[in-house]
Amino acid sequence: MTETVTMDMDTKNQQFDEDLEKIMSFLEESAYFNARDLLLEYNAVDIAEMLEDILEDLGVEKVVILFRMLPKDVSVDVFSYLPGDDQVAIVQAITDREISYIMKEMDFDDKIDVLEELPANIVDMILEKTPREERKLINEFLNYPEDSAGTLMTPEYISLQDTMTVAQALAYIKKEAMDSETVYTCYVKHGGRKLEGVVSLRALVIADGDMLVSDLMETDYVYLNVYDDQEEVAEAFKKYGFLAIPVVDNEHRLVGIITFDDIMDIIEEETTEDIERMGGVMGESDKEYLDMGVFKHARNRLPWLLFMTVTLMITGTLISQFEEVLSQVIILVAYLPLLMGTGGNTGTQAATLVIRGLSVDEIDMGDTLKIFWKEFRVSVVIGVILSVFNFLKITLIDHQSPMIGLTVAVAMVIVVMFAKLLGGMLPIAAKKIGVDPALMATPMISSITDMVSSVIFLLTASILLGITL
Amino acid sequence: MTETVTMDMDTKNQQFDEDLEKIMSFLEESAYFNARDLLLEYNAVDIAEMLEDILEDLGVEKVVILFRMLPKDVSVDVFSYLPGDDQVAIVQAITDREISYIMKEMDFDDKIDVLEELPANIVDMILEKTPREERKLINEFLNYPEDSAGTLMTPEYISLQDTMTVAQALAYIKKEAMDSETVYTCYVKHGGRKLEGVVSLRALVIADGDMLVSDLMETDYVYLNVYDDQEEVAEAFKKYGFLAIPVVDNEHRLVGIITFDDIMDIIEEETTEDIERMGGVMGESDKEYLDMGVFKHARNRLPWLLFMTVTLMITGTLISQFEEVLSQVIILVAYLPLLMGTGGNTGTQAATLVIRGLSVDEIDMGDTLKIFWKEFRVSVVIGVILSVFNFLKITLIDHQSPMIGLTVAVAMVIVVMFAKLLGGMLPIAAKKIGVDPALMATPMISSITDMVSSVIFLLTASILLGITL
Repeated sequence: MTETVTMDMDTKNQQFDEDLEKIMSFLEESAYFNARDLLLEYNAVDIAEMLEDILEDLGVEKVVILFRMLPKDVSVDVFSYLPGDDQVAIVQAITDREISYIMKEMDFDDKIDVLEELPANIVDMILEKTPREERKLINEFLNYPEDSAGTLMTPEYISLQDTMTVAQALAYIKKEAMDSETVYTCYVKHGGRKLEGVVSLRALVIADGDMLVSDLMETDYVYLNVYDDQEEVAEAFKKYGFLAIPVVDNEHRLVGIITFDDIMDIIEEETTEDIERMGGVMGESDKEYLDMGVFKHARNRLPWLLFMTVTLMITGTLISQFEEVLSQVIILVAYLPLLMGTGGNTGTQAATLVIRGLSVDEIDMGDTLKIFWKEFRVSVVIGVILSVFNFLKITLIDHQSPMIGLTVAVAMVIVVMFAKLLGGMLPIAAKKIGVDPALMATPMISSITDMVSSVIFLLTASILLGITL
Repeated sequence: MTETVTMDMDTKNQQFDEDLEKIMSFLEESAYFNARDLLLEYNAVDIAEMLEDILEDLGVEKVVILFRMLPKDVSVDVFSYLPGDDQVAIVQAITDREISYIMKEMDFDDKIDVLEELPANIVDMILEKTPREERKLINEFLNYPEDSAGTLMTPEYISLQDTMTVAQALAYIKKEAMDSETVYTCYVKHGGRKLEGVVSLRALVIADGDMLVSDLMETDYVYLNVYDDQEEVAEAFKKYGFLAIPVVDNEHRLVGIITFDDIMDIIEEETTEDIERMGGVMGESDKEYLDMGVFKHARNRLPWLLFMTVTLMITGTLISQFEEVLSQVIILVAYLPLLMGTGGNTGTQAATLVIRGLSVDEIDMGDTLKIFWKEFRVSVVIGVILSVFNFLKITLIDHQSPMIGLTVAVAMVIVVMFAKLLGGMLPIAAKKIGVDPALMATPMISSITDMVSSVIFLLTASILLGITL
């Protein structure tokens, strides 16, 4: 992309797709050099994305040939951007020497990610060829609990002494920059391993050369603990907008740093998990939709479906208790879906807002009463509007008796109020007992409202229409 | 927070809450100096969060007094982190001179955000006191389309000439650093206003002083167009993980830069919009859940509810066409919710996965056939398992006739297959015609599956049980 013509994102995406197709057809004709040259017009992230598509469409062999033809420094970057599956496929197809080269050159945190994905025998082979010091560090990093700050951090940071002058610090940064994830935030110690402060490269560049690092460093920095969960890590980045956050152990010794670019993926992952749970899909989605097998898909979806089959059967049993009412006024069957559906929908709306509010920290458990009061008032407004709408439709358009209209209208207000309060309160209650609020979305809410709505409707009918059960 | 004891996030949050309560009780006793001193142990982000809570609980007067007692540089930072509503409340309570000071010191992009929120008369007052050059620039920025890259960018970046040496560039950066949003990526021009390349401070710090900027700069940089939508901006940041991305106009002139910290909020906003739409809540959620009025809440929720009331009534009418079947075999009414609910749930699961896949670019429109094939196979697996489960429950536990069991089982397979394929295809179809796929979640899917499931079930019943309609 050396052109200077400006393109908006759509045009760029189109260009990307066209070039990808060209590369694929070069590969099909085994015109590898042409393919490589076109590929190299893109940056590492784009190249990784293209290789991923090529691997899927043309198989691993062509990708490996192409991968080997990339300049060595590019291939290391590209490798670290590939998804885990593709990394494994490539590692299994290249020589030990090539693997060692890539591993040696990769950033430490990317290396840990790759090692976590690779089969044990390849990990052993790689560790054998790793210098003893680094091997120890790798093993330590691989042992942090899954999804903890420890597995996200990198030990490749710039560490300064508080007694250095700015000029000394800058000279030191110049020397160490190659082996650091970031040089823009530097970490200051005082002899030992304890973190004393942080100083930005910006502050160092602005300051006079003979100032001391200890005068420039900030001591009220934000830090994470090595055992903090990745969700808390993401929260900290979202809240403060920092480039990097230091990670310390329980003795406040600096053990690594986490940079913002690694956190973007975590935020996306956490959101996906939330959204899927809200949509009734359980289990880990460690693979992309299309890469996940049919049985894994089925296994992730069945738990909620089986749970709901049971609750829907209970709903059915409850409805059949009102056989007397239904057989006398069979038209009520036609309005049953309306009441059940409205209960589910209004409840889902409230639950969605509260779950999202909890997850972005807009509301917390102290707001329970406020949420109750808000949903109470909203449900009165909505309940009344829907009731009037339905009453008019039933009497004027369906030409049913006003009593049928009244039955639906009265039941509607009760159902909407019940559903909104349930939807508002259930996520909070879940959080209180340590259950993920996202589980209290559509499936759970509609399970409960289906049962309750149908009973409310049929009870209202039997009372208003004077039918003894 | 000058302590060196390590705390994990939970402990930190607890500490925060305790200190906030202390500050509130100081304020209630009008012990403002105590409140301020405790407040100043936190950084600007935390202080803003505390002021937000204090404003809500104790009213704007106390917050303004406290705000005025903050050191001036802190107050500017804190102000820019406050939500729009609170900024307006504070601006209306402080003097013109104080406003001018804050406005003068704020980062340009934050200033634009604030001006967009403020009432017109205050904006006019502020602009009057702004130097002419800057006023022109502000007006230009305020005129970019809402949610475009133009409204997110800042003109405060470091601009180098390609003919500079590294030493000259570093000296220039030292001079300009105070007025720049970031110094870590610098933008290189060649005489005119066109963007020729970008160079990182890291590269400049590593390089020898007499090298030329033109030798260090990268020319295959990623850039955005000033009219790109904020969703595309967020995509670019997620994809590349860059600190900052330059924004150019249609003549490829550099007009501003966007930094990653401003994009975190956008990503969160876009996700919230998606989640709310998936949960059947329409409209803008420019306010937090608790701050939004009851009628605004009702207005955001009513469109889908009214739409669904209509579709549920149609479902009811369809069901009443099968009065003959239902009155002959009234037990079928008990299984109707089961079929309708299962249709809605299985469809929602598929739709959730496809909508999320589309929004994180895991799948695109070219994958339509693959999604169809995947959902087809998943639905066969799930359909068969649910059918067997239901058949056994109906015959063995409910003691119904095998024909009733068979009716439910056969209808179940058809309903699951229909719902899964609908859930998989509808979001793709929506995207094809330019509609937000997130609108094809629960509300839309269950509207359609409710209708179709009940018809499938009652048709199956009339055929298998030999009832003429």
